[in-house]
Amino acid sequence: MKMNGNILLHHGSGGLMMQNLIHDLFLANFDNRFIRSLTDSAILPGKPGRIAFTTDGFVVDPVFFPGGNIGKLAVCGTVNDLAVSGAVPLFLSVSFIIEEGFPLSDLETIVKSMASEAKKARVLIVTGDTKVVPKGKADKIFITTSGIGHVEQEYEGISHARKVRPGDLVLVNGTIGDHGMTILNARESLRFSSRLESDCACLNGMIRKMLKGSPGIGFMRDATRGGLAGVLCELAGKTGLGIEINEENIPVREEVNGMCELLGFDPLHVANEGKIILVAAERYGKKILEIMKKDKQGKTSAIIGKITEGHKGKVLLNTTSGGKRWIDIPTGEQLPRIC
Amino acid sequence: MKMNGNILLHHGSGGLMMQNLIHDLFLANFDNRFIRSLTDSAILPGKPGRIAFTTDGFVVDPVFFPGGNIGKLAVCGTVNDLAVSGAVPLFLSVSFIIEEGFPLSDLETIVKSMASEAKKARVLIVTGDTKVVPKGKADKIFITTSGIGHVEQEYEGISHARKVRPGDLVLVNGTIGDHGMTILNARESLRFSSRLESDCACLNGMIRKMLKGSPGIGFMRDATRGGLAGVLCELAGKTGLGIEINEENIPVREEVNGMCELLGFDPLHVANEGKIILVAAERYGKKILEIMKKDKQGKTSAIIGKITEGHKGKVLLNTTSGGKRWIDIPTGEQLPRIC
Repeated sequence: MKMNGNILLHHGSGGLMMQNLIHDLFLANFDNRFIRSLTDSAILPGKPGRIAFTTDGFVVDPVFFPGGNIGKLAVCGTVNDLAVSGAVPLFLSVSFIIEEGFPLSDLETIVKSMASEAKKARVLIVTGDTKVVPKGKADKIFITTSGIGHVEQEYEGISHARKVRPGDLVLVNGTIGDHGMTILNARESLRFSSRLESDCACLNGMIRKMLKGSPGIGFMRDATRGGLAGVLCELAGKTGLGIEINEENIPVREEVNGMCELLGFDPLHVANEGKIILVAAERYGKKILEIMKKDKQGKTSAIIGKITEGHKGKVLLNTTSGGKRWIDIPTGEQLPRIC
Repeated sequence: MKMNGNILLHHGSGGLMMQNLIHDLFLANFDNRFIRSLTDSAILPGKPGRIAFTTDGFVVDPVFFPGGNIGKLAVCGTVNDLAVSGAVPLFLSVSFIIEEGFPLSDLETIVKSMASEAKKARVLIVTGDTKVVPKGKADKIFITTSGIGHVEQEYEGISHARKVRPGDLVLVNGTIGDHGMTILNARESLRFSSRLESDCACLNGMIRKMLKGSPGIGFMRDATRGGLAGVLCELAGKTGLGIEINEENIPVREEVNGMCELLGFDPLHVANEGKIILVAAERYGKKILEIMKKDKQGKTSAIIGKITEGHKGKVLLNTTSGGKRWIDIPTGEQLPRIC
């Protein structure tokens, strides 16, 4: 049954209408033994070992797009931030800021897709908050998710890139730029290919298989805002090592490439929501690639370059035409509100 | 040195300008060994025992008000949600959604007061996120904070009110309604008393002293949206017990009372940001009150009523004029954006 009507200011002010919304929508969909107690804080089981803790705000425009919506994006983004830190994602919080007048049926669709994505990723949404602001004071809906995961000791170094060495391989789990170009196409009604679809997905399942299936992973990062280039430039800066990537090996969908060329975007800078960049010791590279390709989220995975002794702290692209080009981190970006 | 200029869309898009903002503003003020690594997730030490996890979005209008600002409010709100759950607050995340054009100097003031409040409350801000939306798509700034705390086993039951019994006393740590009336006065430029000031404060220090100083605390909750009435009605509903409170014992500032009378608000329904309602076994009531009164945040604490066998699930007010009145949870509330 679809919910009717629109969000009113009263839905966010701590009274009976908010309690009904919490019960009928949030509890009904996110239900688990932790959220059910509706206390100020969720009280969760602890585990020996380290805790990974992350947060992200989502303001994507449009709220619904091919391949997902703001709710799916929020769950996947937070799950992926935990997973690339070497953590097993366990618990999420969700905070809604909603514009008065937002259709309840749209909120329901968003909440249902958050619940479904959380279930697939095996995380529990355990606590939350809802605020409503008057019409015109926010743009439809903003969602902030935070997440907690458990880090086993052997994977603690991954987010710090401490084990990255010259000669290591650089891999990506598939085509880049899909999310950013899909959002732009949807927002501006550009009518580019209808096959454009966001890559928005939870990657913790694939990442777990990779970590358990092979040693040698020295670094992982999800390539969201700033794209592939952002991650690699940051890695080069952090490690002081060089990175060399080969344009011909970087998977880009034909329709994304075409749209980028026409509009003047560089796919290396375009945001993804289901892509990780990882660095692996050379002798394990093939094994890891194999594991990735077997996973639904890694079918078009590729080895795209390597870590070098030379050109320290910089990223070099070998172009398909045989040239060489330095890759920079963009100063800003052309695409606001892609996540 | 004050920062100049305004927030631009580029400050939120994953590029160099965002990196500079993170370094010059967030790292400079929140600095600690966990946030410094700037990884996707903060990697934190675990502890045996349960974890408390909470989140809250803050959309208060105006952003600056007597007694605080949206940043101080966010830190205190999250710290208090953890503390009333019987947890020691440890780590916070912070997610900013900022409207293009927001003055950087205002953001700096907000960030500095978050840092200062976190320091006082002995919590670390360990991870964060910044999104910028175009002018007109949000109202100045929204902040979502999440928090993690550690719950010692003996305090696990507090947020569930499992130990609340008929005859227990109901206490509050001081005057109610200060925050809500201050915000309304500031927002509408009503020019009521200039002595109106928000009670926004971190209460974890006081709560810790109470828990350590006396047994017998069966329940605690911060009385934010929905006010004192909201907390008591929820407690009565949850436990199935009755609650009786005495109007003459409930501390209300003269200026708050006056403003409520003139504008038709009930102070019992007005939001607080530094007030907790607690229930304690009768024989420990005086001892706990003593501890509260010694703390800066509890100087005007009072015993305001008791838990009863009768009128199950309902809250009864004995008025100063000798009458009796049922207290209801408000359907909505008259005051949007008070937190």
